[in-house]
Amino acid sequence: METSRLATFADGVFAIAATLLVIDVSVRAEGDRLGHAIVHAWPQYAAYAVSFITIGIMWINHHNCMRQIGKTDQRFMVINLFLLMCIAFVPFPTRLVADHFHDGGLRAAALTYGITMVATAICFNLFWFYPTRNRRLVAEDADVRVIKGISRAFAPGVPIYAAATLLALWSPKGAVIFFGAIAAFYVLESSVFTRSEPQPI
Amino acid sequence: METSRLATFADGVFAIAATLLVIDVSVRAEGDRLGHAIVHAWPQYAAYAVSFITIGIMWINHHNCMRQIGKTDQRFMVINLFLLMCIAFVPFPTRLVADHFHDGGLRAAALTYGITMVATAICFNLFWFYPTRNRRLVAEDADVRVIKGISRAFAPGVPIYAAATLLALWSPKGAVIFFGAIAAFYVLESSVFTRSEPQPI
Amino acid sequence: METSRLATFADGVFAIAATLLVIDVSVRAEGDRLGHAIVHAWPQYAAYAVSFITIGIMWINHHNCMRQIGKTDQRFMVINLFLLMCIAFVPFPTRLVADHFHDGGLRAAALTYGITMVATAICFNLFWFYPTRNRRLVAEDADVRVIKGISRAFAPGVPIYAAATLLALWSPKGAVIFFGAIAAFYVLESSVFTRSEPQPI
Amino acid sequence: METSRLATFADGVFAIAATLLVIDVSVRAEGDRLGHAIVHAWPQYAAYAVSFITIGIMWINHHNCMRQIGKTDQRFMVINLFLLMCIAFVPFPTRLVADHFHDGGLRAAALTYGITMVATAICFNLFWFYPTRNRRLVAEDADVRVIKGISRAFAPGVPIYAAATLLALWSPKGAVIFFGAIAAFYVLESSVFTRSEPQPI
Repeated sequence: METSRLATFADGVFAIAATLLVIDVSVRAEGDRLGHAIVHAWPQYAAYAVSFITIGIMWINHHNCMRQIGKTDQRFMVINLFLLMCIAFVPFPTRLVADHFHDGGLRAAALTYGITMVATAICFNLFWFYPTRNRRLVAEDADVRVIKGISRAFAPGVPIYAAATLLALWSPKGAVIFFGAIAAFYVLESSVFTRSEPQPI
Repeated sequence: METSRLATFADGVFAIAATLLVIDVSVRAEGDRLGHAIVHAWPQYAAYAVSFITIGIMWINHHNCMRQIGKTDQRFMVINLFLLMCIAFVPFPTRLVADHFHDGGLRAAALTYGITMVATAICFNLFWFYPTRNRRLVAEDADVRVIKGISRAFAPGVPIYAAATLLALWSPKGAVIFFGAIAAFYVLESSVFTRSEPQPI
Repeated sequence: METSRLATFADGVFAIAATLLVIDVSVRAEGDRLGHAIVHAWPQYAAYAVSFITIGIMWINHHNCMRQIGKTDQRFMVINLFLLMCIAFVPFPTRLVADHFHDGGLRAAALTYGITMVATAICFNLFWFYPTRNRRLVAEDADVRVIKGISRAFAPGVPIYAAATLLALWSPKGAVIFFGAIAAFYVLESSVFTRSEPQPI
Repeated sequence: METSRLATFADGVFAIAATLLVIDVSVRAEGDRLGHAIVHAWPQYAAYAVSFITIGIMWINHHNCMRQIGKTDQRFMVINLFLLMCIAFVPFPTRLVADHFHDGGLRAAALTYGITMVATAICFNLFWFYPTRNRRLVAEDADVRVIKGISRAFAPGVPIYAAATLLALWSPKGAVIFFGAIAAFYVLESSVFTRSEPQPI
């Protein structure tokens, strides 16, 4: 199950989307001024880190979802495709936010980032609730408590990203900090607050 | 069977070609004008979506074909290589269409897109009819009805893309809408009209 | 065996190097002149095709070699790494040849392409003769005739690419045609002249 | 175990980060001057080689670590994510060093490269000592001598890269040569000095 082609293709898109983020990290300066320019470009590194971690956490979630799913059908593959289309788009708004952190374009950039994340969260909900509803595609040995736990964890995704997106209208920098905080929360939530049992690789 | 290297390499090319599309989505504008520029760049997002979905549907089809195939030979690997060469080329005409949607270059861009898709469809036919003819490389447990179903579904691919390409000579925008409609049709066809049975991942 | 991490990493590099080639295919022209520019850019498509097919054939060869190899050690992994380093470099000289096909830089570009291919061929020889010498890492069920056949097929690689590289000193265009002919030969050799038996995927 | 999704995702990031390095190798010159420009660009090839080999050696180490690990938990996946975030960042400082090898920006570039490598080495330590401490996630059939050997081999990583980074303050070129020497040492150490037993692929 773990090595299915659905997972291979998805892993590829997650890995490439995350790794492509580095292409947009770029600093251009003449010789001696390079040091200053590298420090000044910190929004680029922050944007890289937030988007890499966000995509990575989504990959871990995708992974956890797939553990509970034992079958597939055409609709599920198409839903997965739309989810991946959103995730592979993330480098574009990331670049916008990084390039316009210090100028008047940040509102538009943050809105674009937020809309992308809301669309991604909606697709992630479809990706989870379509196969688990009526246990349509659920693996026979899936644990009903784990499924309920994932469903609970997914519930706040869309409203949180929608709130951060709306915040961009009022305070673009606030929205960007909110996006970073969401990523930080997911990291802490899955690694510090939760004490997960070791499970087979 | 599902985890063969043929599939791994193909999955890699499909995933990379789809994910690379985002590199060409780019909006450059000074601060306050960014919002307007982001909205104005909608042909880029549409081109991204159409090409991502088209490549993704082709990946699903590749996947469905490979389920019926149980052996390989050198010729089949070379045919697969030519198919992947066409698919990995898709980002180039996609970029042309997105960049020239509003100017006089759209006819040439749409023709290039169409020729790429016709070549891809021809390679896909070879990829399917070479291994299934006389059941040359068909898996022993393959279902003859599934094979016939795939063969029927593949028949219209080349003529439809050829028609859309010819339409570009007369109406470039019409052709581009046609390309989008073909992608939408394939999505609907495989997820709404067809009621596929769940199958093992 | 087929799904080992050595193969997964190698497949990734082969797939990415081949798919990245499309990033360098680029045509810039104002509206109406796009059609002419697209036609005029044919060396770019030819370079894309030759390099994609060359990388693809090398992937098939890598695949065929790995079928005969059942063990690994640190040295073999390092040799594999150097081989992949050469293959992942191919997009660079490909871009040089495509960009300078019509100007005085073709000699230097063709030499760079040739030196890259000679280095790749040398690494490929190490990759094959290190594990098979004294059957050091050969799989227990490997067929001695297949191993001898691969060894014979590998022998001419370095001298042929060296000859094409030297030809670039005298006739750059001749050398470029030679590189294309080598790719065409390998395609024909593995798909038309050879009648390979179907084997398990 | 070898084909787990954790490994697939990691392999993808390693392979993409290494292969993306070639995008930054670029030489622009008019016709006849191309030959001279290609030779003059040698720091780019050296930077490509050092970073490709460094990422490749880290992949081999990741591979060797994963052989000893039989379970996973959320924290380990998050640690792996931070490790991959560092590795996928390597193309950025590599580009800085290559672009500024001949000008006054080399100090800043070498410091950036060094800090990236120190962060990577710290994450690698976490990646190894978190799962092996108290044998938390160690595979049941893991060999305690192999685990101790890996732990010993990992100890000098952070101090060596920290030393090379500090050296950049005093002698940027010296630091860059040191980075190359570290890569060369790891290649020699794992392929010449060590006589590893063949093991199953």
